[in-house]
Amino acid sequence: MNYLGVLMGAILLTAPVYAASADQRGTGDLGIVVERAAGRIQIFDSSQRTKLASVSELGDLSHASAVFSRDARYAYVFGRDGGLSKVDLLTGNLEKRVAQAGNSIGGAISQDGKLVAVSNYEPGGVRVFDAGTLEPLADIPTGSKVVGLVDAPDQRFVFSLYDLGEIWLVDMSVPAAPKITKYPNIGQNPYDALITPDGRYYVAGLFGEDGMALLDLWHPDKGVRRILDGYGRGEEPLPVYKMPHLEGVAIAGKNAFLPAVGRHEILVVDMDNDWQEVGRIPVHGQAVFAVARPDGRQIWVNFAHPANDTVQVIDAATLKVVHSIQPGPAVLHLEFTPRGEQVWISVRDADRVDVYDTRSMALLGSLPADKPSGIFMTARAHRIGY
Amino acid sequence: MNYLGVLMGAILLTAPVYAASADQRGTGDLGIVVERAAGRIQIFDSSQRTKLASVSELGDLSHASAVFSRDARYAYVFGRDGGLSKVDLLTGNLEKRVAQAGNSIGGAISQDGKLVAVSNYEPGGVRVFDAGTLEPLADIPTGSKVVGLVDAPDQRFVFSLYDLGEIWLVDMSVPAAPKITKYPNIGQNPYDALITPDGRYYVAGLFGEDGMALLDLWHPDKGVRRILDGYGRGEEPLPVYKMPHLEGVAIAGKNAFLPAVGRHEILVVDMDNDWQEVGRIPVHGQAVFAVARPDGRQIWVNFAHPANDTVQVIDAATLKVVHSIQPGPAVLHLEFTPRGEQVWISVRDADRVDVYDTRSMALLGSLPADKPSGIFMTARAHRIGY
Repeated sequence: MNYLGVLMGAILLTAPVYAASADQRGTGDLGIVVERAAGRIQIFDSSQRTKLASVSELGDLSHASAVFSRDARYAYVFGRDGGLSKVDLLTGNLEKRVAQAGNSIGGAISQDGKLVAVSNYEPGGVRVFDAGTLEPLADIPTGSKVVGLVDAPDQRFVFSLYDLGEIWLVDMSVPAAPKITKYPNIGQNPYDALITPDGRYYVAGLFGEDGMALLDLWHPDKGVRRILDGYGRGEEPLPVYKMPHLEGVAIAGKNAFLPAVGRHEILVVDMDNDWQEVGRIPVHGQAVFAVARPDGRQIWVNFAHPANDTVQVIDAATLKVVHSIQPGPAVLHLEFTPRGEQVWISVRDADRVDVYDTRSMALLGSLPADKPSGIFMTARAHRIGY
Repeated sequence: MNYLGVLMGAILLTAPVYAASADQRGTGDLGIVVERAAGRIQIFDSSQRTKLASVSELGDLSHASAVFSRDARYAYVFGRDGGLSKVDLLTGNLEKRVAQAGNSIGGAISQDGKLVAVSNYEPGGVRVFDAGTLEPLADIPTGSKVVGLVDAPDQRFVFSLYDLGEIWLVDMSVPAAPKITKYPNIGQNPYDALITPDGRYYVAGLFGEDGMALLDLWHPDKGVRRILDGYGRGEEPLPVYKMPHLEGVAIAGKNAFLPAVGRHEILVVDMDNDWQEVGRIPVHGQAVFAVARPDGRQIWVNFAHPANDTVQVIDAATLKVVHSIQPGPAVLHLEFTPRGEQVWISVRDADRVDVYDTRSMALLGSLPADKPSGIFMTARAHRIGY
């Protein structure tokens, strides 16, 4: 270091342009943990691994999810009871909360960050709100429970109708006049859907039959087609609480990794070859989430009861399980840090979020949380399909 | 809207947890424009399309680039004169500046956000600094000009040695003891390099011969191999100022889009088939940057003099140029907003940054800037290879 020491002249310059204050901070490394039972979220700093604030009175947060504003300052939290809450991550304030439906299941934010959409069971449909004010901008009744709502490029939303077996593609360029393209007869009871990280493929899982429904958004005129017919949902209809989540699909190169409903397997499909199955990877239980590290090299999988104390890691190069850990009772969700060096895992019944190094697989530390479920980091603000 | 109006009860709740102040703001929609001639950067808000501050005394900013801190609050600006500057985007303060070498050409930030690396011509090598303090942590002399420095997953940096024809892969897990793997004989005079957005492939362009050198970081033990032999650099060596940039490579599905040095063509290569050429797309001039909209559907290309008033748009589905615009004299750089609804284009000799809608192709507005060159937005903080 002597050479460096001689060569380098570190000069500290301060040239205040606008005022600095102690409560200013960047928002790129913030995130939230849903504390479901308490109807509360915890705001955390993923760099320091510290809790910053709690925000409560958010209603029923079973199955709650969240998206983030374009500036990564606000979280929009979607509750099971139809509540839509806008939370300021910098101040910990609940800025606004609207009871926008009786029963809802997730939401999305538009490509330009100006529209927040919520998918509702009761009354069935999608409602769209101004991301700034939460004023209603559009109501899209569907006559069916809506599932699998995602944002897509070119200011569109895509979602599926559980009761009617349809996919709707909605262009929101003019918010007051949504342009709807309907794809009927896509199969029985779509229960959830995914969009690939490049926003090209929308895939709905079907509860009522074996197979999935694929819409190629590069060629929406070609319609929806069936893929993975008979892919292994099994003979018996399964209880919904064991259905895997499809959002946050794991993609590595041309391969997508999908939980095979009802089986202890992860399906590997080749997106470049018509989404045909190219392999199955045996895993520890019925997979719930199969999520890829942001570089796609690893796929981390958690499981339904009674295997829900375990997480397994698949190597995308060899298509084999290379590591298993047992974080504790009721692992509900996994979220990678934006560039994938860590994964944050909620262990509900241990009241902890555990943080693992994805290279060494070492446990780096934990954050106490009250019955944690979903974990969401602000880098989602900049990604398609979150 | 009547139905909505009746159903929804918008409740405004305020429950201050920690204090709010007027100068707080999210940092997810910030960016900088390099004003090269003035040795200055401009900080902007990409949501409002407004200038927030100027930061000057940054030295020689020819060919300057920038990376961002993990929290998206700070920009690290790499100057041509070896200056490394850390700028607070919230306050507009130049936090610190070190003259770390005599002549340098870009840098990178580690996966965990803790290390900033700079690639130097004079003295040839890479220097690594603490991202918080800019204190020197490691010095990696190479005996050669260093080009094509990028971050890679698993806390690594990769770069190429112009004079020696080598690629070095450096594991920075222990910052004071970099673990270096050297790949010699990769070809003559690598002049720049790219890493794919998934952090898997590192590709160096060769100035001294036709072809490129490929390192698959999933299989680093397999070594570097040659791809695209005789891909069309042309018979005559070309002046360096016309060499295309390789960083920010355009990827759509399995295809990568590369400027063909010296020709008026964009090369299409199939990453899944050993990076073989699968097509060439005729374009308006010698391409400088070919960058993909974040969803990969469009590739935007700018050109060397005398075609540098023009930008062309390639459709990744049809592999054809579908749109051409003439923003003005000396188009130097393009940066997409994080989810791709807009592209920001610096038009140096018009002293403007123009903002286009990537769907309608309409000009949305402009930001005045003094001889603008590079444009960098904070969402890069969360991406691999920036």
